[in-house]
Amino acid sequence: MYDTHVLSRVIVIICMFCCCISVKYQPNWESIDSRPLPSWYDESKIGIFIHWGVFSVPSFSSEWFWEYWKGQKIPGVIDFMNRNYRPGFTYADFASQFTTEFYNADEWANIFDASGAKYIVLVTKHHEGYTNWPSKYSWNWNSMDVGPKRDLVGELATAVRKKQGIKFGTYHSLFEWFNPLYLRDKANGFKTQDFVRDKTMPELYELVNNYKTDVIWSDGDWETTDVYWNATEFLAWLYNESPVKDSVVVNDRWGKNIRCKHGGFLNCDDRFNPGVLQKRKWENSMTIDKYSWGYRRRAKLADYLTMDDITKEIASTVSCGGNLLINIGPTHDGRIIPIFEERLRQMGEWLGFNGEAIYASKPWSHQNDTLASGVWYTSQKSSNGTTVYAIVLDWPANNVLKLGAPVASPASTVSLLGYNGRLTLAPVAGSGVIVTIPPIPINQLKVEWAWVFKFTGLQN
Amino acid sequence: MYDTHVLSRVIVIICMFCCCISVKYQPNWESIDSRPLPSWYDESKIGIFIHWGVFSVPSFSSEWFWEYWKGQKIPGVIDFMNRNYRPGFTYADFASQFTTEFYNADEWANIFDASGAKYIVLVTKHHEGYTNWPSKYSWNWNSMDVGPKRDLVGELATAVRKKQGIKFGTYHSLFEWFNPLYLRDKANGFKTQDFVRDKTMPELYELVNNYKTDVIWSDGDWETTDVYWNATEFLAWLYNESPVKDSVVVNDRWGKNIRCKHGGFLNCDDRFNPGVLQKRKWENSMTIDKYSWGYRRRAKLADYLTMDDITKEIASTVSCGGNLLINIGPTHDGRIIPIFEERLRQMGEWLGFNGEAIYASKPWSHQNDTLASGVWYTSQKSSNGTTVYAIVLDWPANNVLKLGAPVASPASTVSLLGYNGRLTLAPVAGSGVIVTIPPIPINQLKVEWAWVFKFTGLQN
Amino acid sequence: MYDTHVLSRVIVIICMFCCCISVKYQPNWESIDSRPLPSWYDESKIGIFIHWGVFSVPSFSSEWFWEYWKGQKIPGVIDFMNRNYRPGFTYADFASQFTTEFYNADEWANIFDASGAKYIVLVTKHHEGYTNWPSKYSWNWNSMDVGPKRDLVGELATAVRKKQGIKFGTYHSLFEWFNPLYLRDKANGFKTQDFVRDKTMPELYELVNNYKTDVIWSDGDWETTDVYWNATEFLAWLYNESPVKDSVVVNDRWGKNIRCKHGGFLNCDDRFNPGVLQKRKWENSMTIDKYSWGYRRRAKLADYLTMDDITKEIASTVSCGGNLLINIGPTHDGRIIPIFEERLRQMGEWLGFNGEAIYASKPWSHQNDTLASGVWYTSQKSSNGTTVYAIVLDWPANNVLKLGAPVASPASTVSLLGYNGRLTLAPVAGSGVIVTIPPIPINQLKVEWAWVFKFTGLQN
Amino acid sequence: MYDTHVLSRVIVIICMFCCCISVKYQPNWESIDSRPLPSWYDESKIGIFIHWGVFSVPSFSSEWFWEYWKGQKIPGVIDFMNRNYRPGFTYADFASQFTTEFYNADEWANIFDASGAKYIVLVTKHHEGYTNWPSKYSWNWNSMDVGPKRDLVGELATAVRKKQGIKFGTYHSLFEWFNPLYLRDKANGFKTQDFVRDKTMPELYELVNNYKTDVIWSDGDWETTDVYWNATEFLAWLYNESPVKDSVVVNDRWGKNIRCKHGGFLNCDDRFNPGVLQKRKWENSMTIDKYSWGYRRRAKLADYLTMDDITKEIASTVSCGGNLLINIGPTHDGRIIPIFEERLRQMGEWLGFNGEAIYASKPWSHQNDTLASGVWYTSQKSSNGTTVYAIVLDWPANNVLKLGAPVASPASTVSLLGYNGRLTLAPVAGSGVIVTIPPIPINQLKVEWAWVFKFTGLQN
Repeated sequence: MYDTHVLSRVIVIICMFCCCISVKYQPNWESIDSRPLPSWYDESKIGIFIHWGVFSVPSFSSEWFWEYWKGQKIPGVIDFMNRNYRPGFTYADFASQFTTEFYNADEWANIFDASGAKYIVLVTKHHEGYTNWPSKYSWNWNSMDVGPKRDLVGELATAVRKKQGIKFGTYHSLFEWFNPLYLRDKANGFKTQDFVRDKTMPELYELVNNYKTDVIWSDGDWETTDVYWNATEFLAWLYNESPVKDSVVVNDRWGKNIRCKHGGFLNCDDRFNPGVLQKRKWENSMTIDKYSWGYRRRAKLADYLTMDDITKEIASTVSCGGNLLINIGPTHDGRIIPIFEERLRQMGEWLGFNGEAIYASKPWSHQNDTLASGVWYTSQKSSNGTTVYAIVLDWPANNVLKLGAPVASPASTVSLLGYNGRLTLAPVAGSGVIVTIPPIPINQLKVEWAWVFKFTGLQN
Repeated sequence: MYDTHVLSRVIVIICMFCCCISVKYQPNWESIDSRPLPSWYDESKIGIFIHWGVFSVPSFSSEWFWEYWKGQKIPGVIDFMNRNYRPGFTYADFASQFTTEFYNADEWANIFDASGAKYIVLVTKHHEGYTNWPSKYSWNWNSMDVGPKRDLVGELATAVRKKQGIKFGTYHSLFEWFNPLYLRDKANGFKTQDFVRDKTMPELYELVNNYKTDVIWSDGDWETTDVYWNATEFLAWLYNESPVKDSVVVNDRWGKNIRCKHGGFLNCDDRFNPGVLQKRKWENSMTIDKYSWGYRRRAKLADYLTMDDITKEIASTVSCGGNLLINIGPTHDGRIIPIFEERLRQMGEWLGFNGEAIYASKPWSHQNDTLASGVWYTSQKSSNGTTVYAIVLDWPANNVLKLGAPVASPASTVSLLGYNGRLTLAPVAGSGVIVTIPPIPINQLKVEWAWVFKFTGLQN
Repeated sequence: MYDTHVLSRVIVIICMFCCCISVKYQPNWESIDSRPLPSWYDESKIGIFIHWGVFSVPSFSSEWFWEYWKGQKIPGVIDFMNRNYRPGFTYADFASQFTTEFYNADEWANIFDASGAKYIVLVTKHHEGYTNWPSKYSWNWNSMDVGPKRDLVGELATAVRKKQGIKFGTYHSLFEWFNPLYLRDKANGFKTQDFVRDKTMPELYELVNNYKTDVIWSDGDWETTDVYWNATEFLAWLYNESPVKDSVVVNDRWGKNIRCKHGGFLNCDDRFNPGVLQKRKWENSMTIDKYSWGYRRRAKLADYLTMDDITKEIASTVSCGGNLLINIGPTHDGRIIPIFEERLRQMGEWLGFNGEAIYASKPWSHQNDTLASGVWYTSQKSSNGTTVYAIVLDWPANNVLKLGAPVASPASTVSLLGYNGRLTLAPVAGSGVIVTIPPIPINQLKVEWAWVFKFTGLQN
Repeated sequence: MYDTHVLSRVIVIICMFCCCISVKYQPNWESIDSRPLPSWYDESKIGIFIHWGVFSVPSFSSEWFWEYWKGQKIPGVIDFMNRNYRPGFTYADFASQFTTEFYNADEWANIFDASGAKYIVLVTKHHEGYTNWPSKYSWNWNSMDVGPKRDLVGELATAVRKKQGIKFGTYHSLFEWFNPLYLRDKANGFKTQDFVRDKTMPELYELVNNYKTDVIWSDGDWETTDVYWNATEFLAWLYNESPVKDSVVVNDRWGKNIRCKHGGFLNCDDRFNPGVLQKRKWENSMTIDKYSWGYRRRAKLADYLTMDDITKEIASTVSCGGNLLINIGPTHDGRIIPIFEERLRQMGEWLGFNGEAIYASKPWSHQNDTLASGVWYTSQKSSNGTTVYAIVLDWPANNVLKLGAPVASPASTVSLLGYNGRLTLAPVAGSGVIVTIPPIPINQLKVEWAWVFKFTGLQN
């Protein structure tokens, strides 16, 4: 009915006029990419991702339940509905059962704090379109109007900010599988932008203005380009004018042509973990339940990552310059189930002993060792020189750790984080060191799952 | 974010350019009002109004349940919720219980047909904003997405059109109590029109294009003017270009300044029944349940109009040039309860005997009699002259009917509809007649509730 | 595990010893039948039957829903479940939806009072076994433990007793379709009586002791004999010792060999209406919804008896010595729907004019007229002789009523109940009279549906 | 109504006559206690207890939810109901939400098998009275009639029996908090036994006959004596005639005067763990969730026993002659949550290495060590003499284990289960040994939580 394409250009022109006096960033990727990433993000290393929404009601299959049921028509999902619900039950009918009666954001924040994570990213709206806050742009399809009758986002933002040193971030899906506004724009070859104008953009502004989010973790971009999504205009506003313009970080999912190229940090794909150093700051977002981001009632123990898996992810990610965003899925009634709590608290224990190898660390000259498998390096620089950390995933056979990458000097020392005793360091001709570990009685080694050997005084 | 005010003016200008070559009607009231009302409407006289929606789930208090609960905070409604629902239950939570499992549009159409009505007006969206059809502009708040999983409007449109001589019309509320888009426009002093652009207008176009509705019964206009509602633009399109441009009729509820002045037929207020002849075609919309338009579970027998009440409404309305739109409220599971069915079928019986005094009739020179109370006149014109019908609400005392308005001539005759015997007509000097009714055995008088005396050959 | 057969005989013997000193009635049918029926019952003539229970939740098909679904596997019922409920939904799952939130026993009592009925018979437990009172013998399958959380029986008992001249009675099913105790006794060829000992008998005692019921309307007897049901023992207690021993009446459904033979009044079959005088007091129990005793959501107007049907039932029943027990089915949320209220109030109107022909009347020498069809007689005796009432179902053609049965004397008079004017009586030679009715203006005849002509001074 | 006291005596006399020819055991405790406990039970050592029922629907507070809510009126429970349910919601209303849709008995059996347990004890009926099998004596209050529509007991019995070497047992509560039959007997000072006759006894017979249960884990006995419960009569039947007469074991909860004195094995109190050797076989029944036996949605990680806690329970229990019955609570939808699965599988891992110290072991001359704390002994006898196992809960400081109880001989050897290397044994003058453990690289010690040192050739 309206030519929004023309309209948006007009608006862009007007905006350019009124804004260009004071602004730093222009709505183009060159300018957007020129902004330095706020340092807190790289220093944080570990974040927690939280997938929660109407999909947490069936909590079956995954957070893609709706699409699997009505889009892809996956037999297992259809069968689940046939066996457990009356004919004609719709996805929206689930919303009134999203009760969240046990949701206590302070309890969640306690767990996150204990986990050693430095930022959290809450799903505020997934591809289902339901907003976990009382959005004015998602009437009767938000957490105040149907189901919880609560501002789920606001409660967590408040609780997390009571904790020292944890940032509050928000996941937001640009597209919505079944939103007819989106589907019409799509049918129009994305030449109309009604959905962006009426839903995506107002929601994003609302999120930022209401909750002062420090991470915008964009998703659902892949069906079209950043032009449709109005991405650079939004980011220019975010970087120039928003209440979080100095602290906010964003990811790279702003269009199918943008992902892994532009934006803030890169997270390219789910579970992105390239194994080699990256030029740009990146993030490995992954999930403790191997098969789902949303809570899945049928998940067995074997479906959850072990602590060995998790420390391996931490080591391999951080050594290559990435952050790890580790996901849990709360229940429809607002709980973080004990197995998630256990993994998070154990991660916190591990980080309690080994955090100096992780937080604010920098990639070293090597990422994984040239000789020993399962060894990943990080480093810290100080006025005293560089400290190198070898994160060893498997305990060295016979208590002897042979590494190929470090080059020892006479001043070199080695120690084992979480253990007070002395270790012996012997250089290898050319390159490499041999570390000999004393017989440590089992009860004197506090650390499990992976061990960090700390080197000082190595040759550069 | 966008200056829609400027925008709408631009659009209006563009529209005026592109449209003015071929069109008849301009988007101003003078032009809109100049369109003759399609004749079917005045000839129909009797329509059925159907209030159905999410409010039919609580079916308590009235179709204003939501507003009474959350807006006006009526104690009885709050108490009802407290006693019967869990804390935190929201209005939108009701939607999944709008099951309509017994809805059979053909059965409804049979009842409407038997009632003698010539058009029906179905509530397609009340002030709650929930659409009874799968609107693309009311995502997850429509009858396909949550609750029935059916196109309630489409099913009835199809069923009604199988019946000869019944038109299908639609009620549509312009405003929505709690729609945040509307509330924002309102907070902006109605200087923005986002709600109209994104919800009201697209919905109306969708309704017209999808269902070829013959009546647009607009409502919910009263908080602001027609300018905000885009009323004349819409009506110009409706009259010039829509698929129902030749047959459609609309009412007058298009802005607080418009009601009872402009549009198609006038229905001014609920239960509008002025008792005197009106210059313009009008409609008396009223409801069988005296206290609610939507189904009300607690309605007692005494809360329903009797057939005496209904025939009185028919007589007083039609004689003054009005149509009667008589309302029922179906249940959440899709039924028309027997008491409504009984009233409608009895109305049909009455019209079966007396329809010639009603359908396609014209007001006579007098509306109610000058002498006898409870007597209303209608007339029919033919090549043989004018037939006058006196609708008598109370049986004449002692079988003698004395009327002041008719002036008899030697050729004057009188008969009683539904009775074959002869009646005696005696003129009164000056003006008036005395009709003497023979002793009719009780089983020979088929008609109940009100009786129609038919006069031919009266003077003038 | 226990030989209850032997046991019950022992108990019988003991009881006979300890009771036979003071008691009037022995536990055998000869003795039971010898008790005169308390006079209030015959004088009442009109009662209201109320079918209410868990079956009122689906309110589909009939109160036999469970048996039709799981016993007889009626396709329509199975289909209803398949279309509207999740697989695995059980009948007992319905109970928690039996909410009765609108149940107001005083409102019910007002309607019953207005109907002219003189006793009510509430279903306290139907074949489903669910008790509408908090029975100690039906744990978690009664109205206090699951669903209403109310004593439905007690509330109505209290409300009805506030009304002058209405007795409170209770329907009780002996057997229960699916009670495993019953099914086991049945499988044992009814040689064990565990079900009777643990469920039927204690319940009946509880009902009588708690609610002082004036009618025990027994049912569900037909699969076995009175011996199994312990019928005579119970009735002997009821007549000799119970708190209602002087006022209570019972029916005849106490065993497949007993029905229509022994007990209190006879009601033989549902809708029993023999059309001829019976030797013993009997009752015609019938229902306004032709197809169900329990509330049926899908009932159409045509499925309800009209007032013509109802007055015909009254006339034909009372003239032959019967009482009419007219049934309604309230809804799961505790309402008497308006169509039932309308029928009951109209019956009350009719009885208001014509009650002297009904209440406390006696059958006359003739029941229906020998000449005129649709004419039923009743009579009243007084010191002035016998008054005879001819209930005329169809208005006499041409206002002349020709009857074959009455024999006029010079002192004979006739009048029309509800009309003050005079009628003419002319004897016919031999037998019969001709009544001539004056031309009554339609508004002077208050009575509809059936008319009562009252004769005094007839020859015997 | 019936003198059941007299009756039961008569029955007892009859039974004594008909049975005494062939039977071994009489219905008195001396005789009952004389039966040797089937050997499988003592050899099993580890069982799994499963609390599941309608209480798993609210899964709040504990399996005592109903009693806490309606009996003791605990504020937290009342508050939970007020905040989350409509007024008038009853406990029985929960039953229809006991859906068990994910219950897969084979998956459960796999977990139990992996846990190393040798018997399972399923709650078949808790104090709420709801039977998890389709009992004929608990109509509409069992898992076939309302809720699951499944035989929960039968499915697990079948699944468990597919596993080698796991016995299937059943928990059964004698009393029921709110059963009116029980409450009446109680009000009668337990002089009537209607509840026992109609509910408890038939249920127990049904359980045994239908499911051939190998453990009857009786509970809910404490309000009265074994005489009321008919305990010895039942046990005499169980031991003499039942289909499991040779294999079945029972506990001691058969009356407030019996517990910890008579029956099969003793389990005295919940979490009974006396810490010293007992004369009679006993069982420590305890639960992984410290605060509840039924599933509790709000349980935090800290509320679950750790593996250190669990191995301590195993050691201290088995060394004193007890069995450990370790409890989990499945969810209303039929799942064993991952934290339970993890604990059970880890217990299975531990038992995999250390089972020879546990299964079929016998208490040694000492239970816990005289010198070292946290050390518990078990033993195995063979033709080669006695092997002694010291279960050490804390790793020996500095890899040196000093024990006071063992007396070494020249032939004495020591080894560490789960480790192939050699340990050094040095006798201490008088009594005691010093075990020196070599420096075991951390990855060569498979066992966690507690370690078993195996001694052969000790004196004595």
